[in-house]
Amino acid sequence: MPSEPLLGPSYATAPVRAELDDTAWLQAMLDVEAALAAAAADVGLVEAADADAVAEHCRADRFDLAGIGIRAATAGNPVIPLVADLRTAVPAHAARAVHIGATSQDVIDTSLMLLARRTIPAIDAALTRAVSAAAGLAERHRGDVQPGRTLLQHAVPITFGLTAATWLVGLVEARAALDRVATERLAVQLGGAAGTLAPLGDHGVAVMEHLAERLGLAAPALPWATSRGRVVELAGALVLVAGAAGKVATDVAGLMQTEVDEVREPGEPGRGGSSAMPHKRNPASAALIVSAAHQVVGAATVVLGAQLQVHQRAAGPWHAEWDPLRRALLLTTGAAERVADLLEGLDVDAARMRVDLDRSGGLVMTEAVVTSLVAGGVDPAAARATVETCVRAAHSESRPLADLLALDPVVRSALGEDGLRHALDPHRHLGATGAFIDRALSTARGATRP
Amino acid sequence: MPSEPLLGPSYATAPVRAELDDTAWLQAMLDVEAALAAAAADVGLVEAADADAVAEHCRADRFDLAGIGIRAATAGNPVIPLVADLRTAVPAHAARAVHIGATSQDVIDTSLMLLARRTIPAIDAALTRAVSAAAGLAERHRGDVQPGRTLLQHAVPITFGLTAATWLVGLVEARAALDRVATERLAVQLGGAAGTLAPLGDHGVAVMEHLAERLGLAAPALPWATSRGRVVELAGALVLVAGAAGKVATDVAGLMQTEVDEVREPGEPGRGGSSAMPHKRNPASAALIVSAAHQVVGAATVVLGAQLQVHQRAAGPWHAEWDPLRRALLLTTGAAERVADLLEGLDVDAARMRVDLDRSGGLVMTEAVVTSLVAGGVDPAAARATVETCVRAAHSESRPLADLLALDPVVRSALGEDGLRHALDPHRHLGATGAFIDRALSTARGATRP
Amino acid sequence: MPSEPLLGPSYATAPVRAELDDTAWLQAMLDVEAALAAAAADVGLVEAADADAVAEHCRADRFDLAGIGIRAATAGNPVIPLVADLRTAVPAHAARAVHIGATSQDVIDTSLMLLARRTIPAIDAALTRAVSAAAGLAERHRGDVQPGRTLLQHAVPITFGLTAATWLVGLVEARAALDRVATERLAVQLGGAAGTLAPLGDHGVAVMEHLAERLGLAAPALPWATSRGRVVELAGALVLVAGAAGKVATDVAGLMQTEVDEVREPGEPGRGGSSAMPHKRNPASAALIVSAAHQVVGAATVVLGAQLQVHQRAAGPWHAEWDPLRRALLLTTGAAERVADLLEGLDVDAARMRVDLDRSGGLVMTEAVVTSLVAGGVDPAAARATVETCVRAAHSESRPLADLLALDPVVRSALGEDGLRHALDPHRHLGATGAFIDRALSTARGATRP
Amino acid sequence: MPSEPLLGPSYATAPVRAELDDTAWLQAMLDVEAALAAAAADVGLVEAADADAVAEHCRADRFDLAGIGIRAATAGNPVIPLVADLRTAVPAHAARAVHIGATSQDVIDTSLMLLARRTIPAIDAALTRAVSAAAGLAERHRGDVQPGRTLLQHAVPITFGLTAATWLVGLVEARAALDRVATERLAVQLGGAAGTLAPLGDHGVAVMEHLAERLGLAAPALPWATSRGRVVELAGALVLVAGAAGKVATDVAGLMQTEVDEVREPGEPGRGGSSAMPHKRNPASAALIVSAAHQVVGAATVVLGAQLQVHQRAAGPWHAEWDPLRRALLLTTGAAERVADLLEGLDVDAARMRVDLDRSGGLVMTEAVVTSLVAGGVDPAAARATVETCVRAAHSESRPLADLLALDPVVRSALGEDGLRHALDPHRHLGATGAFIDRALSTARGATRP
Repeated sequence: MPSEPLLGPSYATAPVRAELDDTAWLQAMLDVEAALAAAAADVGLVEAADADAVAEHCRADRFDLAGIGIRAATAGNPVIPLVADLRTAVPAHAARAVHIGATSQDVIDTSLMLLARRTIPAIDAALTRAVSAAAGLAERHRGDVQPGRTLLQHAVPITFGLTAATWLVGLVEARAALDRVATERLAVQLGGAAGTLAPLGDHGVAVMEHLAERLGLAAPALPWATSRGRVVELAGALVLVAGAAGKVATDVAGLMQTEVDEVREPGEPGRGGSSAMPHKRNPASAALIVSAAHQVVGAATVVLGAQLQVHQRAAGPWHAEWDPLRRALLLTTGAAERVADLLEGLDVDAARMRVDLDRSGGLVMTEAVVTSLVAGGVDPAAARATVETCVRAAHSESRPLADLLALDPVVRSALGEDGLRHALDPHRHLGATGAFIDRALSTARGATRP
Repeated sequence: MPSEPLLGPSYATAPVRAELDDTAWLQAMLDVEAALAAAAADVGLVEAADADAVAEHCRADRFDLAGIGIRAATAGNPVIPLVADLRTAVPAHAARAVHIGATSQDVIDTSLMLLARRTIPAIDAALTRAVSAAAGLAERHRGDVQPGRTLLQHAVPITFGLTAATWLVGLVEARAALDRVATERLAVQLGGAAGTLAPLGDHGVAVMEHLAERLGLAAPALPWATSRGRVVELAGALVLVAGAAGKVATDVAGLMQTEVDEVREPGEPGRGGSSAMPHKRNPASAALIVSAAHQVVGAATVVLGAQLQVHQRAAGPWHAEWDPLRRALLLTTGAAERVADLLEGLDVDAARMRVDLDRSGGLVMTEAVVTSLVAGGVDPAAARATVETCVRAAHSESRPLADLLALDPVVRSALGEDGLRHALDPHRHLGATGAFIDRALSTARGATRP
Repeated sequence: MPSEPLLGPSYATAPVRAELDDTAWLQAMLDVEAALAAAAADVGLVEAADADAVAEHCRADRFDLAGIGIRAATAGNPVIPLVADLRTAVPAHAARAVHIGATSQDVIDTSLMLLARRTIPAIDAALTRAVSAAAGLAERHRGDVQPGRTLLQHAVPITFGLTAATWLVGLVEARAALDRVATERLAVQLGGAAGTLAPLGDHGVAVMEHLAERLGLAAPALPWATSRGRVVELAGALVLVAGAAGKVATDVAGLMQTEVDEVREPGEPGRGGSSAMPHKRNPASAALIVSAAHQVVGAATVVLGAQLQVHQRAAGPWHAEWDPLRRALLLTTGAAERVADLLEGLDVDAARMRVDLDRSGGLVMTEAVVTSLVAGGVDPAAARATVETCVRAAHSESRPLADLLALDPVVRSALGEDGLRHALDPHRHLGATGAFIDRALSTARGATRP
Repeated sequence: MPSEPLLGPSYATAPVRAELDDTAWLQAMLDVEAALAAAAADVGLVEAADADAVAEHCRADRFDLAGIGIRAATAGNPVIPLVADLRTAVPAHAARAVHIGATSQDVIDTSLMLLARRTIPAIDAALTRAVSAAAGLAERHRGDVQPGRTLLQHAVPITFGLTAATWLVGLVEARAALDRVATERLAVQLGGAAGTLAPLGDHGVAVMEHLAERLGLAAPALPWATSRGRVVELAGALVLVAGAAGKVATDVAGLMQTEVDEVREPGEPGRGGSSAMPHKRNPASAALIVSAAHQVVGAATVVLGAQLQVHQRAAGPWHAEWDPLRRALLLTTGAAERVADLLEGLDVDAARMRVDLDRSGGLVMTEAVVTSLVAGGVDPAAARATVETCVRAAHSESRPLADLLALDPVVRSALGEDGLRHALDPHRHLGATGAFIDRALSTARGATRP
């Protein structure tokens, strides 16, 4: 059963939500306990049969989740009641193999790392879909001109392919950052009471390494119970992913606005409707992605602000990380999945882009005209002054800039009619657009670093 | 069923959790719909019977919570499917009375304000318990000396009563801030599609005022759909409460540490135990309060960072507020309830405080000795130099400072034996401690402003 | 000399910058020292002449600012070297009157409160200008219709007067919050070494009260060295102000965008130009206000996250507040001043607003048409279906919605030609717009609570 | 002249401050302009002589910093007036080579990357010093036992070498993260008006690559004007460094507290003194490092929260990054330098550590005794119950736990006198401590990944 259905819109799809709910977390803690017993058996500290007996009981459905939660409120964390119940559940001979050498933090930290390891493939897959869709858009709209907009003003022509290529690179970079964290920084935490693994005698490091191997996590140099770089890096990578998705969503919402109307979210019955206005087509997905990005930053802020953990286990800052980390994973997955859907189904109106570009009557080409005048021998300051005069006249007389330029003697002599037409043709003033798109596509193929 | 039991420890008690879970939120949205229909009937826009018919159906258990959540993910928010279901549920003649004049944001914003209004009394009650307990501690330990600690160093003597009085004032101030928000800033949001309430014709303001009265919320000057001061102030007040609770918890954890051991959390079977170490008595409640304080700040950061909402409804920043606001309410209630329990049951060891004070062999009295020397006619710089010489000797010779002071000729001549004894008596160097405690107690009784 | 001129754009005007630079802070600390000596004289602890002698030396230009900064890096705070220099500077007999009973934190906290008290009038004055300008806009454009925009889509008609009235209320609310903090929460901090004011004997409270009166600050119940509600509330109020200004700026930037072009920032040579594009008129002020709002939230986050201060003085979290508080004051003043300028000089194009409204060919009136149909006896669901059919046809046939509505048999029979014209007239569908504007104006006049 | 000397304590040493002040930033912007002209010459777009003429004028001392700041406030950023002044300064024929193809953001973003590239070596050097010092401590104190502390309670014995090794690994990890960002993510930004580099025709990519090579920065796939992963990753790496330093400082402040007194900050005249208490030795450096860590997180939060930048240049969120990025660099350098000093001069009292360990009368050895009992054949539950009984008796009778254990029949029969002595010997219960230290040292030598 997905938790918090009313907030569904902000979150991941049901399968991922199920991977991050309380049952999944409980199971991850039990998986750590089972793997720990097995690791102890690997080095001969306990009998393999006892480890197997422990493993057999490490199934979330055998535990009273709500009851553990209630006792956790008294104990200070859920591992204390969980271990008590697990010890009771296993045969007496196997009790010693339960939680051997470990402390609560070992289980919680490692289980959160497991949740991350289990969730990241969904994020990665969604990002890969999004990258592929963005690459397709970049290819298909490589030459479809669109107004470049800076500070919300038309600036110079770009192509929608360049817009999509920029999204692509942001997504590729974020995916690379997340993959690096997944590969290098997700590690087991195993230190016992205060980081020495004393009860394991000489076997501490070996148990830690077996545990890591069994769980598919890295083995750290030493316990990181109060050295929180790993969780900070994880949170940071999630922020990058949510931010890259949020950048796409921000642009899509901006390009969907009534006055611009250059793209639309994928149509679907019920999507983006309004309870009051039949005509609206809201950027519903974009809004939810943006919402997720805001919340992931908030969650990350908690993790970043909890780094100062004293001595061998902190009284509060560590506890503050648990929920924000889960939430950041959930929200980031949701953002990644939604942005993939958004890009795959994006409805692009290239004709409208061209209309928008022309709407200014040539104003968006002023840089190009100045450049052409200078290339035609006009002094840069004079070129700029000429164009500015025409711009002012276009404004005050409400006439197209092109007409005024055509009448200007400086322009006429420097460019001639054909030259002016060329100067005003956006396709002739795209500079490195194609080269940048190619570089982006090469990045997407992994051929080059972003 | 309480949501997220594994995280129970960070959160409020079950009754409050139940007031903030998805079912409660759904009910709050339905309460808004019912009150809106009734307010429309109040001004004659719809039949009273139709409003009653709507109200009859506004019960959360009649709706498919999970289904609404799934459709919300497509629609962009949960109100769109909720209103659709409600319109279907009511008799045909009453359909027009459903959601009349409103937009989704009206229902979501007002329902979140309702959740706040319903939760704040629990926070307030917990704070009142905490204030009362702190006042009791301040009274009882008014004269129990304790080392004042600055930058974790013993500074000069204080009393534990002053410590408790400082907690008291922090809690009173936070409660006052929250009460002010509850009284003045929790308001209905009703603007319809874009803030004009056009479908209500001339009745817009009247409906808004009836709605406000029916829900026990304030009526704003105009809709605040993108003017988010109210939610920012609510979040800010919650941060103050969580911070005041967190300050107490931080001190308690510090005073509980093995080397200090001046107070202990209330004993209770299972509380604060360790999964590995039988002797430990952990600051389990304090840790969870501190954890909540960190998380409330994170949630508030999202709300504070979402103020820049464009035009008449934002595409994302507004959606980002929902969950952090609920979560901040939940965590703050938990922090307040826990700190009340903590203060009510705090185990104070005044004898140990005196032992800790004396442990430095008089070092903590150096300011008092300098003051006494100056009062005895010694030049301030000379007084300070004399004491510093004795401090250094005490360190290097590992002898009590008192002995070295007793041998110092400047001290002997200025203070004599009795004078030195007085100078070293912490009870004679408490300055305004008693007066400050009285002022704090007066604040707690509401007699004076904090 | 204003500090950091390159960042001038983000910051306050030069006079306010000068009130918050290092020299001003140094002077504020010296003002505290002077007032403290005077307060001690008030109660007879030191000679009035000695207090006067101290006051005479408390002028920032007599101190080596840079040298104090260097020594502060070793000492841990700037008060330690400052007091040493001040003690050296005054006549020997007055040395005892310097820093009497105080600790470094007393001086730093009180001086930051002084800086706030000195800066807030500038913020308040700017907000009052902004409120007045917004009120003028609300009055003048009370009936100038404009598309209401939700999720960046045209929704229903509003008026620009309502937009301005919404800004107004946000600014009034923020000013009220700031004024409350200024009046009630800016207080002296005076506790001495650990909050007992021991060296002042029985005079502690009296000295604190005289100090408060002399500095124009409140006297707290007791020292708040580690009870940081006051600074959190100050930071929170600054966030509200920056947010209210940022909301205006966000809307202005949105309304200035090329495709919308309904308002422009005040024209001025050099303002908002582009280094590359002669035609651009950038929202330069709006961008800087938005930038300030982001940064004020960041600064506030530091203050909110530093509440957990242990015992009687914290080792780090307190030190973390100093710069963010100054910076939040500086940036908020800048945001308030800029938004006042922006509103006072805003260039509003009401004709263009009407053009934008009509651009959709009537789509923005769909809610109004549905409402009119229902008022004309059509079943609500049927009314909505009718309009949706026409909307779809308008889209697919690229025809104005009005034409299709005029041909629809349901519409014709329910409304007739005149009825349809009325239904499509935005001025007839403004609902409570006028009433809301009046309520906002009443708020601005202080007649009613926001 | 270093800016803001009063805040010196929070910041970097003077040389680094000078690398990040306004003059340095101005110079960095001029360096970008000079390199851009040279890069244009590299590809033949301008004459080499003209590029040289530009370079000759790109010296900060030739510009009116304050005046540029004032004009920046109107223009919206400092590059607009700077370029105007630079164009005026160079010979007429070279004017065209100034700012060729670029927009303001290109210069600001690239100059901030330059500041990072110039500052990071100082951070790196400081971290290397800190790592080396921590390695020395880990080696020297490999066997010096100390109480392991969890939730501020004594847990089990560790050694101070393990504490230092944990610091070491945190610092190595943070340095690795920063080095990765420095190597891979610091890149030029060059896109011109809207990311196409149109005025550079076919030479855009080549100019970008020459610019990158000349400045020692990477060349991105395409312009990242609104794709802010690079600055987010930079901010994230700085948070890691400040956090690793802050972790050391937090521990040092905790270990310095009067009741613990196991380490002290390096002694130095004037360091850590108190203005009121002659005996105090404050953790002055630790406090300033902690303060810096808080502020770096605040600055990073601004950068992380500013990712949603619309279209080709954002109106505000981008501007919000400038100062927080500089400040984060400054504060992180300060934290790194201070922590290196702190670790190099740390005064460690191993004898006191042993005294602290023994203070509990053996309580800290309970886990070891349970482990030994189990190894001696006692059932785990029974072993734990036995020890708990003794612990309670030790508490209630105020006797050393060792004495009570020696009298317990279960203990006597399972362990005997020697066995109990061994069980109570902390040196025999250090588990993997030595192995972990070795792994950490290997990490420090770069032999293995952290």
